[in-house]
Amino acid sequence: MVPRRGVLKGAAALAAGTTATGRAVSQSRSNLPPNIPEWMKTQGATILSPPYGLPSPFEKNVIRRQRTRTPTQTAATTTTPLQDLQGIITPNGLHFERDHGGVPAIDPDQHRLMVHGLVERPLIFTMDDLTRFPSVSRLYFIECSGNGSWNVLPPATTAQESRGLLSCAEWTGVPLATVLAEAGVKPGAAWLLAEGADAAAMTRSVPIAKAMDDALLCYSQNGERLRPEQGYPLRLLLPGFEGNMSVKWLRRLKLGDQPFQTREETGQYSDLMPNGVARQFTFVMEANSIITFPSGGQRLHGPGSYEISGLAWSGRGRVTGVEVSTDGGRQWRRAALQEPVLTKCLTRFRLPWTWDGAPALLLSRSIDETGYIQPSRAKLVAVRGLNSHYHYNAIQPWQVAADGTVTYVA
Amino acid sequence: MVPRRGVLKGAAALAAGTTATGRAVSQSRSNLPPNIPEWMKTQGATILSPPYGLPSPFEKNVIRRQRTRTPTQTAATTTTPLQDLQGIITPNGLHFERDHGGVPAIDPDQHRLMVHGLVERPLIFTMDDLTRFPSVSRLYFIECSGNGSWNVLPPATTAQESRGLLSCAEWTGVPLATVLAEAGVKPGAAWLLAEGADAAAMTRSVPIAKAMDDALLCYSQNGERLRPEQGYPLRLLLPGFEGNMSVKWLRRLKLGDQPFQTREETGQYSDLMPNGVARQFTFVMEANSIITFPSGGQRLHGPGSYEISGLAWSGRGRVTGVEVSTDGGRQWRRAALQEPVLTKCLTRFRLPWTWDGAPALLLSRSIDETGYIQPSRAKLVAVRGLNSHYHYNAIQPWQVAADGTVTYVA
Repeated sequence: MVPRRGVLKGAAALAAGTTATGRAVSQSRSNLPPNIPEWMKTQGATILSPPYGLPSPFEKNVIRRQRTRTPTQTAATTTTPLQDLQGIITPNGLHFERDHGGVPAIDPDQHRLMVHGLVERPLIFTMDDLTRFPSVSRLYFIECSGNGSWNVLPPATTAQESRGLLSCAEWTGVPLATVLAEAGVKPGAAWLLAEGADAAAMTRSVPIAKAMDDALLCYSQNGERLRPEQGYPLRLLLPGFEGNMSVKWLRRLKLGDQPFQTREETGQYSDLMPNGVARQFTFVMEANSIITFPSGGQRLHGPGSYEISGLAWSGRGRVTGVEVSTDGGRQWRRAALQEPVLTKCLTRFRLPWTWDGAPALLLSRSIDETGYIQPSRAKLVAVRGLNSHYHYNAIQPWQVAADGTVTYVA
Repeated sequence: MVPRRGVLKGAAALAAGTTATGRAVSQSRSNLPPNIPEWMKTQGATILSPPYGLPSPFEKNVIRRQRTRTPTQTAATTTTPLQDLQGIITPNGLHFERDHGGVPAIDPDQHRLMVHGLVERPLIFTMDDLTRFPSVSRLYFIECSGNGSWNVLPPATTAQESRGLLSCAEWTGVPLATVLAEAGVKPGAAWLLAEGADAAAMTRSVPIAKAMDDALLCYSQNGERLRPEQGYPLRLLLPGFEGNMSVKWLRRLKLGDQPFQTREETGQYSDLMPNGVARQFTFVMEANSIITFPSGGQRLHGPGSYEISGLAWSGRGRVTGVEVSTDGGRQWRRAALQEPVLTKCLTRFRLPWTWDGAPALLLSRSIDETGYIQPSRAKLVAVRGLNSHYHYNAIQPWQVAADGTVTYVA
């Protein structure tokens, strides 16, 4: 056994010493540990209960939060706490949600997927049928087209409030192309209608090219079966496309020769341009990024070394670079990207930063494999105007004040 | 709106038709869907509660299970339900667990990490200190050295019972080398002692070369902070090494010039060889694999097309290949490996298989980047004997009977 009193004497001695960088010790000096912490003096909790684990009670504020108030508690939206997460995976319990008629309680044994319309053989699949097909697993982000805001938000907005309609998981399912081949796509089929088995019967039209490319019929999310609010037992997944098209609780696919012009397409999910014309079928989520540390609501505890960290993504493929500015855009530095950098997946970026204690304006911009560079708000608004609800991907600035507080600025 | 009665007529018609492969339709014929399922006729549940999501009640059997009976409910072991999971990520609520004195309830604000011994500057870190260091995120498996069994298990054993002391997550933390550089490693330091803040004060000796290579001080797991049973708020992570060395609830690192010969090293976690000599410090988990579908306790519903799927891993680096046999080892076929294939990470393999309805003996063997091939039980026992408790990595066979039931065989 190591004499612990000796350990503490050594540790206490460090208060008068100097360190290699001075970084890590400054906060420890005035707050030495107890000799033996209380939790080493008693047996801990059993690991047998619960059989499905939960976060520490000390993490009780790391939760999904309602984004906007809605008339009812169904048809709501909750956000992922991006500012509290590391890496690129979103744990399933914190994946953002959006639904239009609440979350249906579906018995997977009773669930069916119908494939009909312009096909050689209309088919109905059970879940057992679908899980027998050859499967693939891929890490993809899902982002709601309503992420971000065209309106200036109040101060102290968090990353969760700013960009929290964004999550990333390892999805497993059968390629939609495999199932369509089983049904036999008829010549002339150019679109398919995807319908959910929720009370809103959510429906969207999907171009057949996307269906035959990387679309998946997913039943698993980060290893386990989908969560109910993520479409249990089956959802469509259209990598890089706006989230609402990855129809949850998927029950029906109808092939046709033109888009189906559902209410989601005629009355929703279109973007009103400055000239009064609405852009329809704006599928792809463009390159985007957000600094998650330091971000709104957080506070820096004095000048010194920090790591700026955040997330970048693009619905068009891989992120090839992220540039970070700490002076409001005068100078930009290239951040390191955490490997593996995957297509249509969140990418974690990091940049060391020494804060001198003066006010600083932090920006990040994402660059994707097409060469597209995430625009400033001014540039985006110049093209798109301010009448849109969707597809906002402007740079998100964070203001660091001299006292270390971090707040949203437009 | 699409007339649903028409849809159903079309679907019903398929019962008399033929399909491209006959695969997916066979089970659907006698079990047509309701016209409109009940869950489309009422508003669904609100997504606002709980703010931290949970699996569907229909997945209530996908849980961690106790592996062996222990005298108390602390110092226990629970396993991951590998047979129910897809892809490579283990959701945090299903990560296997092992502890020696229960799970401590640690207040992260009170937690400290001491670094002392053969260092220039003994240091004490708060969690805030540690999270300010530059961080990395990596996907790694953790496997208990006691995974698998040297004894023949009873029939109907599941993949969870056979190899469930195995999980995989995206871990985020600070490289241990960074923190040691801050303290300044003295010449002659060759080992470090890692101590947990649990009631058992779990301690292990770690070679300094591993500490300076890829060891991490982790605080996050699949995005969120560690779960309590995974070491909240801080654990050591030694990629590829036996799980117990990735000390949880990490409170102390002492550098020395030789191994510390803790009780875990003198009385535990060593392997008794046939000649009566115990091998000590057997760190690396060798190449291993398990077929998760079809596996013990599952049942095939008649002859036809299936996908054999499973997990492969190696503590020495990347898995370069997995071979699968369906005839007890006479013929082997190369399985497809799901990208990305990462070092010291689980790798998902898949192989299409047409089952003719005759009894079949399924095997898988993993090959890693060192050229090592996972051995049969006979070959492993010939070298290691039957006195060991740890480091069992023999091929796991599954017997498929003519009625489709799948059972363990030695």
